[in-house]
Amino acid sequence: MTTTLAVDCMGGDHGPRVTLVACRHFLEAHPEAQLLLVGAPAALAPLQHPRARVVAATEVVAMDDAVEIALRKKKDSSMRVAIQQVKEGQAQAAVSAGNTGALMALARYLLKTVEGIDRPAIASGLPNAKGGATTVLDLGANVDCTEQHLLQFAVLGSALVSALTEDENPSVGLLNIGEEAIKGSEMIKKAGELLRAAGSAGDLNFFGNVEGNDIFKGTTDIVVCDGFVGNVMLKTSEGLASMVGGFLKQEFARTPLTKLAAVAAYPVLAAFKKRVDHRRYNGAALMGLRGLVFKSHGSADELAFEQALIRAYDAARHNLLDRVQARIAHARPLLVGADEPAQAQPQPVTTY
Amino acid sequence: MTTTLAVDCMGGDHGPRVTLVACRHFLEAHPEAQLLLVGAPAALAPLQHPRARVVAATEVVAMDDAVEIALRKKKDSSMRVAIQQVKEGQAQAAVSAGNTGALMALARYLLKTVEGIDRPAIASGLPNAKGGATTVLDLGANVDCTEQHLLQFAVLGSALVSALTEDENPSVGLLNIGEEAIKGSEMIKKAGELLRAAGSAGDLNFFGNVEGNDIFKGTTDIVVCDGFVGNVMLKTSEGLASMVGGFLKQEFARTPLTKLAAVAAYPVLAAFKKRVDHRRYNGAALMGLRGLVFKSHGSADELAFEQALIRAYDAARHNLLDRVQARIAHARPLLVGADEPAQAQPQPVTTY
Repeated sequence: MTTTLAVDCMGGDHGPRVTLVACRHFLEAHPEAQLLLVGAPAALAPLQHPRARVVAATEVVAMDDAVEIALRKKKDSSMRVAIQQVKEGQAQAAVSAGNTGALMALARYLLKTVEGIDRPAIASGLPNAKGGATTVLDLGANVDCTEQHLLQFAVLGSALVSALTEDENPSVGLLNIGEEAIKGSEMIKKAGELLRAAGSAGDLNFFGNVEGNDIFKGTTDIVVCDGFVGNVMLKTSEGLASMVGGFLKQEFARTPLTKLAAVAAYPVLAAFKKRVDHRRYNGAALMGLRGLVFKSHGSADELAFEQALIRAYDAARHNLLDRVQARIAHARPLLVGADEPAQAQPQPVTTY
Repeated sequence: MTTTLAVDCMGGDHGPRVTLVACRHFLEAHPEAQLLLVGAPAALAPLQHPRARVVAATEVVAMDDAVEIALRKKKDSSMRVAIQQVKEGQAQAAVSAGNTGALMALARYLLKTVEGIDRPAIASGLPNAKGGATTVLDLGANVDCTEQHLLQFAVLGSALVSALTEDENPSVGLLNIGEEAIKGSEMIKKAGELLRAAGSAGDLNFFGNVEGNDIFKGTTDIVVCDGFVGNVMLKTSEGLASMVGGFLKQEFARTPLTKLAAVAAYPVLAAFKKRVDHRRYNGAALMGLRGLVFKSHGSADELAFEQALIRAYDAARHNLLDRVQARIAHARPLLVGADEPAQAQPQPVTTY
């Protein structure tokens, strides 16, 4: 069966200039894939391909548009139309590099959350010292979480990782400030109990508490945390990586001699750079919705945007939605919160 | 006036083997300083110095001792005796590389918090891209914080940075998941209002919200956050730095050719390593107590432990305690929470 992605080609900092190049590369590398290119037909004309079809949308959600604008005013935006394709079954996943807050709000509005899940979460992989990726969620969609939400994130994250890798039983760590079960806030302790119960029931492979350094060590396949902590963690990591990269550059640029050393070390530095290249980890999943939506970084270049397409494609063809449903059905007895009346409206999502 | 430090020479992973060497270097570099070397006299005999005096203590708090052991059983521990020197005015600050939880509990029990401050906080500097340090607090003493606590951290952090640098008006950022004032949890929004009010009243130099990446960018001199977020941020940074360092090492060790490149690049790599050397940032302040206590990393080597001594010495001779008092007096109208009855007993501190 062919898998079709709906691509918001107008979103992100660069729009079609980047998205179309990425789409072409993606199509060449994936002979079974089909794309729906969503946006202004004139802007999308440069990409002619037998497995790509343009779906017209007259508006574009700007990177700084308020969520309300995206939801209530721009009803024919490329972002909205792309998600609509998923809703209507024309595509199995949507991908956008646009404004995170707008994407989350539109996805939630159009697709709704899966039964058993209160709130969608943002999940993405971060490179780890084992050479793999650690999937962390939530990265910023939910600033105030209960223990029930963390359990839901663990279920969603397990479905995502099993869809993207061969591993049907990925391990889950609870982000805490100490390995001992007595550490952390009351909410975290309760989340630990709930996750342990889910582990005992065979709903997921719960490892126990992990600390911040375990994310990059790769102690577990999945790390769950509330969206405030996850977002701070992610942005701090970006800041540190950028500082360290800058320092290395400065030291090699200091004198003619160090510049010569940079030439000698070039292949090593290039290999190093490739290994820590954040573009390879682009493509966050909006989890917990009745349809697949993937978010690319707004500043993504061709290589990075293609990674987001690949991630969405792999998730779709490995039936991520079915896996989510199956895992929720299995964990149903523990997922109590989701049947209760909706809680206070969640915060608008952050600019992940 | 001479400044005296009480040094817990038995604490940390290495004990006197490291602490005594660091103390000797410190004394040589600081001709006005006096040290009280606290611990087993036999173990401390190797360091004979006219400005160092041994204060005997028969017990040692082990790195894995429970807080209760340190508080109730080992009443003649080197850690406790060192803090006692501060309480009795024999020393102006205590320094220990021992167990953080025990140190915080003992310091709090013996010294008490300053009037106007509910809970002590752990503050430390992290290197930033501007070449300076960003002081972050709390790094793990308080897992559940109110907006009042974040205001108190801002006041304490401002006093610390003004004591350690020439800057009498250091800037304070509130760690959040977006720059806009509407971002974050309800508590963070209220903290933002309180900090803005304190800024308007001239109590501190409030910059506004900052994000995780701003810590390493050096956007503000001080960043305040709750201890859960601060601890996760710190440990994540340690994990990322360790992974990146490991990758760099692996790439240079890959083949005979890359090993040759490492030789050519050696001076550059050494300069780079020095720049990101976490030992230079060793020495966290336990803030908000009626006496100065500094915490070294347990694994500190001679260079790192000496940094903690220098930090404590600088804070003491620049009257950190007076600065804290003065800032609290100034901010008194906004520091309402601290006059209320004590809240629920705070969590045991984490192993920062």
